[in-house]
Amino acid sequence: MTTSNAIKKVLIIFAHPDRRSLNGSLLDATVKRLESQGREVKVSDLYGMNWKSEITEDDFPETHEKGTRLKVVSESLNAFQHHKLTPDVVAEQEKLKWADLVIFQFPLWWGTVPAILKGWVERVFSAGLAYALPERYGNGTFAGKKGMLMVTAGGEKIHFSATGILGPIDDILFPIQRGMLFYTGMSVLPPFITYSANYIPDEEFGPILERLYDHLQALDSLKPIPFRKQAEDYDPKTRQLKKEIVEASNEKGFSLHIRKD
Amino acid sequence: MTTSNAIKKVLIIFAHPDRRSLNGSLLDATVKRLESQGREVKVSDLYGMNWKSEITEDDFPETHEKGTRLKVVSESLNAFQHHKLTPDVVAEQEKLKWADLVIFQFPLWWGTVPAILKGWVERVFSAGLAYALPERYGNGTFAGKKGMLMVTAGGEKIHFSATGILGPIDDILFPIQRGMLFYTGMSVLPPFITYSANYIPDEEFGPILERLYDHLQALDSLKPIPFRKQAEDYDPKTRQLKKEIVEASNEKGFSLHIRKD
Repeated sequence: MTTSNAIKKVLIIFAHPDRRSLNGSLLDATVKRLESQGREVKVSDLYGMNWKSEITEDDFPETHEKGTRLKVVSESLNAFQHHKLTPDVVAEQEKLKWADLVIFQFPLWWGTVPAILKGWVERVFSAGLAYALPERYGNGTFAGKKGMLMVTAGGEKIHFSATGILGPIDDILFPIQRGMLFYTGMSVLPPFITYSANYIPDEEFGPILERLYDHLQALDSLKPIPFRKQAEDYDPKTRQLKKEIVEASNEKGFSLHIRKD
Repeated sequence: MTTSNAIKKVLIIFAHPDRRSLNGSLLDATVKRLESQGREVKVSDLYGMNWKSEITEDDFPETHEKGTRLKVVSESLNAFQHHKLTPDVVAEQEKLKWADLVIFQFPLWWGTVPAILKGWVERVFSAGLAYALPERYGNGTFAGKKGMLMVTAGGEKIHFSATGILGPIDDILFPIQRGMLFYTGMSVLPPFITYSANYIPDEEFGPILERLYDHLQALDSLKPIPFRKQAEDYDPKTRQLKKEIVEASNEKGFSLHIRKD
């Protein structure tokens, strides 16, 4: 807790409709433990806040002329630059700026984040804030911050393996971990995943908590997932992986975009 | 158009906030062309319908006791089996039952479907209807139907290649094509993708339309993406790919779950 890179401020984006769920219990345990470690914690409980999931022209009330064509990316950039985003979005962006670590906590529904969390990303990760070409994938406004997923999944762990019916979990989470978090410049800590989450008997909750506490205890020393950085590993002109990287690798698919160190 | 397997009824789930967008133009052109081919078309314009994106306890007004713990999967199954889902969800399910082909049309935002479309899947693809263990991935209620994505993407095509900065498009769409459509039993036709979609000059719209018409012209003969089927390619007990498949393949990641035929 005493090194200069220690995580002091944690923002949890919580996306489950019921605080009495397994996700809710894990949230409570996480907040308590993080605070007992001397960290500050803020929680955005998206369902509890009645978060608006859809990006619409109402997101740009002062900069978009109602009834004219809505170009989402440029509207988002324009409203952000002129400080004209809506108060709910601005409040989330302020929390993001405050945080050292941003946790997305959610049940894995249909292989990705719940709609309400997807809508949080669409509305809060404004152009100009969360991304500004060409500085992406490891660089950007959020460089220096950390991101992490806390996921519950109905499927069994073994079914999320490379040969399992549900597909490898690293690839399933890749579009979220790399495409949403790393994209903005955050480094991404290994996720905390709870499998078989629809059928957890009471006596198995203790071991899950133990594992959670171990994860949180190690928070400051967890090594980020070594996603390849745009500024280092891709040709700046073609935005393709550098030839020597491709030639030296046996990987295919998403794995090619992760270092082996 | 005259074979018995011809696609006669098409449902388009449209998820863009503005009908004047490129997506809107492509929708209009698609509907017109499909109708001129003698097919029936229904469109669910999610933004236009003010679709409710979040699955909540209000989705189960008669079967869930308000204020008690909400277990989404079992609630969904229970309400479906007792014909107690909400009218907006039932209407979409009726359209699904009617359709031979279901098209998801959307801009690729943050590497996946917009929140409003994700919410449509969460609410409409009820347990019991869209999935019923253990019959998934190529089997299920929707077997015999076809699914297809129509996607616009801001990024350039070359950046969505295997070595491109955005990652291979087949892998990016895999959780949607296999995890949402094929999962329910639908076979999945190759997607229609428009790249560099934020910057299309007027003179390039003609060639895009030409390509769209070619795609729609070939609709009845397009070969589905050969995702491996649960009932054929996975061990029924372990739900792992059969050993001979793994041993015979050089693929890694998601590609291992697609046949090479």
